[in-house]
Amino acid sequence: MRGKFVTFEGCEGVGKSRQIKDICNLLDVKNVKYRLVREPGGTSISEKIREIILDGKNRAMCDRCEALLYAASREQLVKEVIAPALESGELVLCDRYIDSSLAYQGYARGLGFDYVEKINRAAAEECMPDCTVFLKLDPEQAFLRKGGADKNDRLELSGMDFHKKVYEGYLILAEKYPERFAVIDASGTRGETHEKIVSALKERGII
Amino acid sequence: MRGKFVTFEGCEGVGKSRQIKDICNLLDVKNVKYRLVREPGGTSISEKIREIILDGKNRAMCDRCEALLYAASREQLVKEVIAPALESGELVLCDRYIDSSLAYQGYARGLGFDYVEKINRAAAEECMPDCTVFLKLDPEQAFLRKGGADKNDRLELSGMDFHKKVYEGYLILAEKYPERFAVIDASGTRGETHEKIVSALKERGII
Repeated sequence: MRGKFVTFEGCEGVGKSRQIKDICNLLDVKNVKYRLVREPGGTSISEKIREIILDGKNRAMCDRCEALLYAASREQLVKEVIAPALESGELVLCDRYIDSSLAYQGYARGLGFDYVEKINRAAAEECMPDCTVFLKLDPEQAFLRKGGADKNDRLELSGMDFHKKVYEGYLILAEKYPERFAVIDASGTRGETHEKIVSALKERGII
Repeated sequence: MRGKFVTFEGCEGVGKSRQIKDICNLLDVKNVKYRLVREPGGTSISEKIREIILDGKNRAMCDRCEALLYAASREQLVKEVIAPALESGELVLCDRYIDSSLAYQGYARGLGFDYVEKINRAAAEECMPDCTVFLKLDPEQAFLRKGGADKNDRLELSGMDFHKKVYEGYLILAEKYPERFAVIDASGTRGETHEKIVSALKERGII
């Protein structure tokens, strides 16, 4: 039986990595096998692509170059890791996936959802998530919680207007794919948000 | 007035770089200003992408990842270099361009011309060459002339069947775009091929 595929999405600083860690701890306690990957990256080729994407020195990068690099990294990750793991029945958790590209490059950068779907064939056609956990929190609050942008991260440095557009993009996606999206209010404490994620995953029969 | 855009295509070992150099020498003698770029590469971001694409260690690279990396490198090159140079009236010469992706990834790797055109928006829609010089020579003869494949180049190591498919792909493209393609018989001496290229560029009013 094919394993389940869960992705985690949200704006910078929303506490995504910490929440994923808490879910992994829970799975460890329950002795549930899973595979955790992060985007961009997760394979040796994808990690090299990640370096180019995130390097603060690459400020001249045009929007379509950025979108294509994310897509390249993702195709490799699906082919090498995600698809084989799902085929062998594993639960796969992924920190960001195609919805990040749709919200960031498709919506906030203005390339369009259609363009992003076309260049992400594996993710858009062959390997869609069973559930996308969207940690919903306004980017101003999220950055405040995070203590400001990371000065070495090209994406985080894009400015608040950009991150507000990303947030808007996520809200549109959540409305467009209500069955796939689990919208989680992430304004509470770490423990409160964790409980909400656990409930959503249980409801969907994933854990 | 917009400058002219000439691309050079052909199989590995066909003598493309040498022929481009000879054309540049001629332009220097005639005091014609031009901009020479090569693919993948030509900008600092594109050169970093080039390293990933060509690195012989990245043998696990899947076909779509490869195609997307070429497309990413190309978008950046068009945006940063080719489009501004053409706008300012310069003659631009490019060592490989979208037809390489169409022949190598679209045809030889089997991804399809349509997919490659979709992921190469700048090249396929906004910045098509005025003339594509295709150096026509069977890849077996070309590799023979070159003295075998470069052992550090992932693409050159793909085997003769692959390179024969690339050649077939080029022939299909030349038939599909007869006005844009200048098909040059490259089986003769360096000087003979040079003369043929010069004639083709003169006929098209480029030099």
